[in-house]
Amino acid sequence: MEKTRRMNVKRISNSLSEQVLDDVPAEEPLAIRVAHWFKDVRRAENLAVTMRTPGHDRELAAGLLFAEGIIRHAEDLLELRMLGAAPSNEIFAELSKDVDFECWRVARNSLLNSSCGVCGKSSREAIVPVRPLAENDTLRISASLIDSLPSLLGKHQSGFLATGGLHAAALITAEGSVEAVFEDIGRHNALDKLIGWALLSGRLPWQDRIVFLTSRGSFELVQKAAAAGAHVLATVGGPSSLAIETARDCHMTLLGFVRDRRFNVYSGDWRINS
Amino acid sequence: MEKTRRMNVKRISNSLSEQVLDDVPAEEPLAIRVAHWFKDVRRAENLAVTMRTPGHDRELAAGLLFAEGIIRHAEDLLELRMLGAAPSNEIFAELSKDVDFECWRVARNSLLNSSCGVCGKSSREAIVPVRPLAENDTLRISASLIDSLPSLLGKHQSGFLATGGLHAAALITAEGSVEAVFEDIGRHNALDKLIGWALLSGRLPWQDRIVFLTSRGSFELVQKAAAAGAHVLATVGGPSSLAIETARDCHMTLLGFVRDRRFNVYSGDWRINS
Repeated sequence: MEKTRRMNVKRISNSLSEQVLDDVPAEEPLAIRVAHWFKDVRRAENLAVTMRTPGHDRELAAGLLFAEGIIRHAEDLLELRMLGAAPSNEIFAELSKDVDFECWRVARNSLLNSSCGVCGKSSREAIVPVRPLAENDTLRISASLIDSLPSLLGKHQSGFLATGGLHAAALITAEGSVEAVFEDIGRHNALDKLIGWALLSGRLPWQDRIVFLTSRGSFELVQKAAAAGAHVLATVGGPSSLAIETARDCHMTLLGFVRDRRFNVYSGDWRINS
Repeated sequence: MEKTRRMNVKRISNSLSEQVLDDVPAEEPLAIRVAHWFKDVRRAENLAVTMRTPGHDRELAAGLLFAEGIIRHAEDLLELRMLGAAPSNEIFAELSKDVDFECWRVARNSLLNSSCGVCGKSSREAIVPVRPLAENDTLRISASLIDSLPSLLGKHQSGFLATGGLHAAALITAEGSVEAVFEDIGRHNALDKLIGWALLSGRLPWQDRIVFLTSRGSFELVQKAAAAGAHVLATVGGPSSLAIETARDCHMTLLGFVRDRRFNVYSGDWRINS
């Protein structure tokens, strides 16, 4: 499936109009169904519907299941396949008996219940199931490599170049090689696809890699990157307060406004050599 | 509560670093609890936890309940209040007996179940519960007014100016007056706050107004704007394929890339005088 669609558009510039054919980012819903085991009974159910740019749907589903904490290894996925005729908007994941889906559901609901002002916990404590990264890593990144991230990524953003409207998530080595790039209209989806690709190809965790996103840095993106073991997360936009606090809690290096040969370090500055 | 937080940041430019205090967008979870009636039994439950920039939480909750189709009038909200001591991250809505929450839940779940390649429906048919707007409106907007939207909005974006990282949703009259602006780290939240403000102050539907968003145009944003009766939706970024198709289906004028005195018309061009 194509990442972009060609549409008829009227372009108005200085009040003069012309009809043009324009490429826009494709957006379609993806229904994710799972089958799991509970007390020796197999259950199939609809997990979620997510709006996404079609393509790399297996990576998207695998990454979402992993980043949400439902599965922990590629072996937890016995089967992962599209349903129906192509182009399909439905994917099915058969989970292994080792996956305690009900436990995940209960934990998730109790997190929802406890993230309140009443229970006395801070909101951050209530919502963060993030494991801190090991602090004894030796990963060090030069400021000049960070400066080069936008131009490194730019060579791999075919969808963005066509539309100006697709986010990208990239995995970069400490030497500055681009290992993989995924594009999606949703910034979370782009990172989920990158995580799913790494999970399915045996490339997790990411302790010696840089994750580079074209979006801003939200709490959920830090949480997903931490689940994949990333020690360095860099974004073109700026981070939120909760993204910074979470990155500091789990010893992740968080960089923002990475563009025009400058950037800000919000957390973990010992990994950056300037 | 403040929309921004001041944080210690290391700024690196051309490999030279300095420590600065920087304002970043605040992000905190908001737990939304509702009480509703089912067969003469009152039920209280957790509806959702959404990450948001604190402030205008009543507007956010009201707008979300309306845009999701749970409530249809301000009168459906018997009570709407923050729980616990300020600053609180929990809000409670008492729904009237007229609200059929279970019906909404069933409809929503069956939509989830049917948005698949198997059932034969197109994904768009399966997910779109959008009522078409009346086509007989007389709203006409000049291209020069559209060109002026970014500068009109710019005067009201205190949070964006401080952080570079907050989205805004604005309601603009056909004469170019800014009626209201709400900012949030989440583009959906900014629009929900605007819709909730209008709902609580008796300003719906919006048939003679322009909704202007600093974000891109996704399917969900078109759906929310349509729920509020907006005939014109303009965004600084570009729209997705599904956003365009949905806007065309419901006769909404959809404008994208509104910046630098130019824009694209993706749907409903008869309302634009160029």
